[in-house]
Amino acid sequence: MSSIKMFEKPLGMRDTFPQIYEKVEAVRNTGRDFLCSRGYEFIMTPAVEYFDTVGKASAIADAHLFKLVDSQGNTLVLRPDMTTPIARVATSKLLKEMIPIRLAYFASVFRAQETEGGRPAEFDQMGIELIGDNSVFADAEVIVTAMELLQQYGLSQFKVTIGHAGILNCILQDYTESVEQQDILRTLLVQRNYVGFEEAVESFDLPKAKTDALLQFIEEAMNLKEIKDIEKYVRKNDALEYMQQLAKLLEIANLADYVAFDFTLSSHMSYYTGMLFEVFALGSGFPLGNGGRYDGLLEVFGSKVGATGFSIRVDRLLETLNGLAKEREEAVVVLFEEEQFEEALAKVQVLRAAGKQATLQLRSSLVDEKAFLAYFSEVVVVGQEEVGGE
Amino acid sequence: MSSIKMFEKPLGMRDTFPQIYEKVEAVRNTGRDFLCSRGYEFIMTPAVEYFDTVGKASAIADAHLFKLVDSQGNTLVLRPDMTTPIARVATSKLLKEMIPIRLAYFASVFRAQETEGGRPAEFDQMGIELIGDNSVFADAEVIVTAMELLQQYGLSQFKVTIGHAGILNCILQDYTESVEQQDILRTLLVQRNYVGFEEAVESFDLPKAKTDALLQFIEEAMNLKEIKDIEKYVRKNDALEYMQQLAKLLEIANLADYVAFDFTLSSHMSYYTGMLFEVFALGSGFPLGNGGRYDGLLEVFGSKVGATGFSIRVDRLLETLNGLAKEREEAVVVLFEEEQFEEALAKVQVLRAAGKQATLQLRSSLVDEKAFLAYFSEVVVVGQEEVGGE
Repeated sequence: MSSIKMFEKPLGMRDTFPQIYEKVEAVRNTGRDFLCSRGYEFIMTPAVEYFDTVGKASAIADAHLFKLVDSQGNTLVLRPDMTTPIARVATSKLLKEMIPIRLAYFASVFRAQETEGGRPAEFDQMGIELIGDNSVFADAEVIVTAMELLQQYGLSQFKVTIGHAGILNCILQDYTESVEQQDILRTLLVQRNYVGFEEAVESFDLPKAKTDALLQFIEEAMNLKEIKDIEKYVRKNDALEYMQQLAKLLEIANLADYVAFDFTLSSHMSYYTGMLFEVFALGSGFPLGNGGRYDGLLEVFGSKVGATGFSIRVDRLLETLNGLAKEREEAVVVLFEEEQFEEALAKVQVLRAAGKQATLQLRSSLVDEKAFLAYFSEVVVVGQEEVGGE
Repeated sequence: MSSIKMFEKPLGMRDTFPQIYEKVEAVRNTGRDFLCSRGYEFIMTPAVEYFDTVGKASAIADAHLFKLVDSQGNTLVLRPDMTTPIARVATSKLLKEMIPIRLAYFASVFRAQETEGGRPAEFDQMGIELIGDNSVFADAEVIVTAMELLQQYGLSQFKVTIGHAGILNCILQDYTESVEQQDILRTLLVQRNYVGFEEAVESFDLPKAKTDALLQFIEEAMNLKEIKDIEKYVRKNDALEYMQQLAKLLEIANLADYVAFDFTLSSHMSYYTGMLFEVFALGSGFPLGNGGRYDGLLEVFGSKVGATGFSIRVDRLLETLNGLAKEREEAVVVLFEEEQFEEALAKVQVLRAAGKQATLQLRSSLVDEKAFLAYFSEVVVVGQEEVGGE
């Protein structure tokens, strides 16, 4: 069996043990209740899709796709995100029923890893897609929903940074001299490689005014409180006005305190066409989630409607939360000998009817009774008086 | 893009639309609450495993495995069942903490399909594994838990048929004259091809007594009310006594009425070593679920403990259930014009605080207002008096 040991899992694949499972479950239930109350309906799509449909349209790099081949010779992929499958479903069916449509999901997505670097190859995402509403109100709804979702978990220490793909494009176009230069700078921004950005700008041999503007931009445009602070870098355009409207709506929703604007924001999710945003828990280097407007994606599937949405990484959210664990504190075990089965069954049925979590266990099957009983808060031995566990 | 249309999904892959999603969710929640109350802890394993570990140990035929290759050249599989991954997890970690251990799962499993025959290539299973207890009480617990789980859904019209791999082997050995003949008959039983079984028996040219015994066996052994009814076919052995004990325990648990014994029962899950069973809803041709004892599987992973468990097919359970749908009857939509956002937000917040599912929608984004509003039970137009929807 080559060099694989019997216990091993593929690179980046993880087991979810009961304690973590219950935390994920608590996150899932809170999120589901909240998103349903906001008028979002949950859907699910298959784990496996055609590469030619969802695989190609998704924004995930080819090297991170899990690919397989079916018996007909078609290339399949494990879904790398939920936005693209939902765009497929919405276009093929749901948009014929209702526009705009509000959809939600809680699902695992897959990203192949090439090195054991701690990055998961399968992780849960929870998110929403608001499809068929091109207004700034739809974008505001998505950002507000993301923030209020975090508040549902008791998180108050978070930050949302909002950018705009159109404004960044405008700035890169105005201060560079080729599409290649724009692509290099955009890639460095996706990687958050700001030192690399400065080095690339210096290497381009641009006129001094452009070099200076780009260096000042990368210095200043990452944490703006007001949209007008970006105006000196960019010619007047619709996107700027759009962002001003968006800022106004977030102010009305009383959420402006959590918001900063970051016009260097650029996503590896290349389908974002308008505003895009990231959500950070304070003190965490990785975004908890991200979202944005993707008006081009549904057109791939033949539907000319815009869409906007966000997704939260459940694993990262869990890292920021405490106190979600469901302890087994109410767990009772009823121990019995072979001839006491009937009596034991009656006893355990009474406990269960009283709402207790109760395990029925043949005593002679226990190899290490002490170790086993340590998992229970109460031990009932049939035929004896009840004794307290630990 | 070859012949694949943009909307298509791989063979046997399905989308789960909101109405079905909520039914699955209801099944999941009821099952989780029940299994937790019985002392089972939920765990999750990755969707992708090594072929050399889980793929080979699983009982699913190679042709039904989804296989892929990672960047190191290892063959991976999508999990074809949950029993094998849980055996891996239990052996590598959990059994070091607690024996016996009671684990539960609700997870999708994958079976590649070669033709569009309506069989799903991905479906949800809910089940339990009781690992490390070799007693008949553990087997009784698993069968009782399966039955009581169905009762949680309000199902009363179901049947559990119980067989035993050892007793069937004994009968096949006694009445055939080669291992090849036994394998042929066993395969026909797995396929439930009873006509084929009879034809094969006739073709073997066995002594008349053996032929007669096998033909009578296939005629009579499928629906026995009492273990003693099989005694004429089989020499006295431990398995027979074991089954008598099991029947007694089910009687004590007051579930004997749901039980029949079927000693022709043979599973494509080749890891079953002892008792095995299937659960049928009355009137349904496909089993809702199945289970049994698999004492050899954990040894593959290096742990010499026995185990027993069952799994339910969620899709088949849903087909037998009614009245699980969560209707959107309480859904309210608040329509507003651009300048009324603040007022609309205040209104929707009041509704949500009162526990209503409330959607906030910019009116001018609606293409077909009537079609959109049809999905809500109440329509609030900001600035107007409230009007009832349908």
